[in-house]
Amino acid sequence: MNKLLILTRFGSEYQQLVEAAALPDLKIASAPDKDCSIILGEPKLIRDALPDLPNVRWVQSIFAGVEQLLDPSTRRDYVLTNARGVFGALMSEYVFGYLLAHERHIFERLKAQQENRWDAKVTGQLRGRTIGLLGVGSIGAHLAGTAKHFQMNVRGYTRESESCADVDKYFHDGQLPGFAQDLDYLVSVLPNTNETRHIVDSALLNALPPRAVFVNVGRGSAVDESALAEALDTGKIALAVLDVFEQEPLPKDHFFWRTKNLWMTFHTSAPSIPEDITRLFVENYDLFLRGKPLKYQVDFERGY
Amino acid sequence: MNKLLILTRFGSEYQQLVEAAALPDLKIASAPDKDCSIILGEPKLIRDALPDLPNVRWVQSIFAGVEQLLDPSTRRDYVLTNARGVFGALMSEYVFGYLLAHERHIFERLKAQQENRWDAKVTGQLRGRTIGLLGVGSIGAHLAGTAKHFQMNVRGYTRESESCADVDKYFHDGQLPGFAQDLDYLVSVLPNTNETRHIVDSALLNALPPRAVFVNVGRGSAVDESALAEALDTGKIALAVLDVFEQEPLPKDHFFWRTKNLWMTFHTSAPSIPEDITRLFVENYDLFLRGKPLKYQVDFERGY
Repeated sequence: MNKLLILTRFGSEYQQLVEAAALPDLKIASAPDKDCSIILGEPKLIRDALPDLPNVRWVQSIFAGVEQLLDPSTRRDYVLTNARGVFGALMSEYVFGYLLAHERHIFERLKAQQENRWDAKVTGQLRGRTIGLLGVGSIGAHLAGTAKHFQMNVRGYTRESESCADVDKYFHDGQLPGFAQDLDYLVSVLPNTNETRHIVDSALLNALPPRAVFVNVGRGSAVDESALAEALDTGKIALAVLDVFEQEPLPKDHFFWRTKNLWMTFHTSAPSIPEDITRLFVENYDLFLRGKPLKYQVDFERGY
Repeated sequence: MNKLLILTRFGSEYQQLVEAAALPDLKIASAPDKDCSIILGEPKLIRDALPDLPNVRWVQSIFAGVEQLLDPSTRRDYVLTNARGVFGALMSEYVFGYLLAHERHIFERLKAQQENRWDAKVTGQLRGRTIGLLGVGSIGAHLAGTAKHFQMNVRGYTRESESCADVDKYFHDGQLPGFAQDLDYLVSVLPNTNETRHIVDSALLNALPPRAVFVNVGRGSAVDESALAEALDTGKIALAVLDVFEQEPLPKDHFFWRTKNLWMTFHTSAPSIPEDITRLFVENYDLFLRGKPLKYQVDFERGY
């Protein structure tokens, strides 16, 4: 019998869904106890609970980001899997929703309406524009597919992989200036690793044309926030749309609250939908029972 | 030699593009004259000019809507072609841009930002929702394809055709209540004809659930505007997004300027891009020279 500990603020929802799946040989623990062998939950809560759970063999994160479990000083004697494959569609909705809001002047049109003004100025369009994706994993690949649906040109920046057919041209280490040149939209889906830290810096921002829009749906650590605020305040780029920040929630006195040409959301671009995550857990539990390699294993060294 | 008259507010752009195409046996008239055999332009300007142009054999409208040329009292002794096939992509950008703005709380998030407030409330999503298309011609088919890209369910209401593979279920005359039942989004792309007049009336609006969003990118005449305003003001449906109206520009004292839960734009959802329209004209001119049937001919009786 395997004992599962559910550790999230949305515990009762997950418990109902897991119970409904009627998984064999599985008991759900009502509280942390030493017999728990599996955890399903949020990395931060799991990190705090791990020291008292010596028999854990598998942890399924309900989030994509698992930074809190990657510190070299913490345990690594279990299999860590994260949530993947379920966020691409949601991220596409967010990213293209905001790009369309920009191109189609959605805020300006509302203002015209409020001012009783028929404003028939022709707006921009996505079709024919060029998007550059920083990171082309499963989320980046989904964004690339949506960009192609909207008849856009797609560039991808990756460590080495070139596996997404919807990317027209790939760029790698050392090729950021060419990647950025003449981009309409730069979108980061990068995770938080040593290699990605502050990859969006003043050099990269300076390489973009003034009409460029930067969107961050990856991790805040990929951005030099001071350099970005300066680029926005001085009009070096046209707009940034940020869903993630170096510190979350964003401190009340952070300069981003006063930065021009910036639209912020609050780490809500791709929420973990319990139905999606439970489906993933059920699939992995079946592999776990059969002693097979689990899906979406995180490499503790690489960080994703 | 064929003589072409260009009749639009954007005449110099079109003239440059047509000249650049270097079409054989074609001369561009500098002003209306009796020898003109072809007109490229806007229906309203063409209607006013037609009485003085007895030798016109072909009119290419740069718009999709050609109501001004359909009055039974006006001439029908020429081939009328309209612009088609070029608006689907633009309409998709508009419709899904606004649906995403609604689902993703884009206005509310901006308000939170302006109020220095971290608002992590989970938003809605398109995935899994049901869209109903009133009209499934080339534009409706494009919208259906985009809806499928976003993993939505698609219903189509048409006179009889069932040719679009992206529509999951078709409805026809007499089946509007079933079509409307439990729809998340109702989108009209209907042209202005006798059959479509006020098809969106209180009965159809009452058949929608309170969460429904209505979008009109077809023609304003398809909507009973008083019934729609009442449905919005009383919360019978959640939101309407209107790009077209019975009278345009919308009169300054029209009640829509004060209607609740209404987002208006100003007949700008799918502008005629001169490059797109000229490509279409060039294609049709080749058919015209070879005496073949032209593409996108309008049936004066049917009205589209």
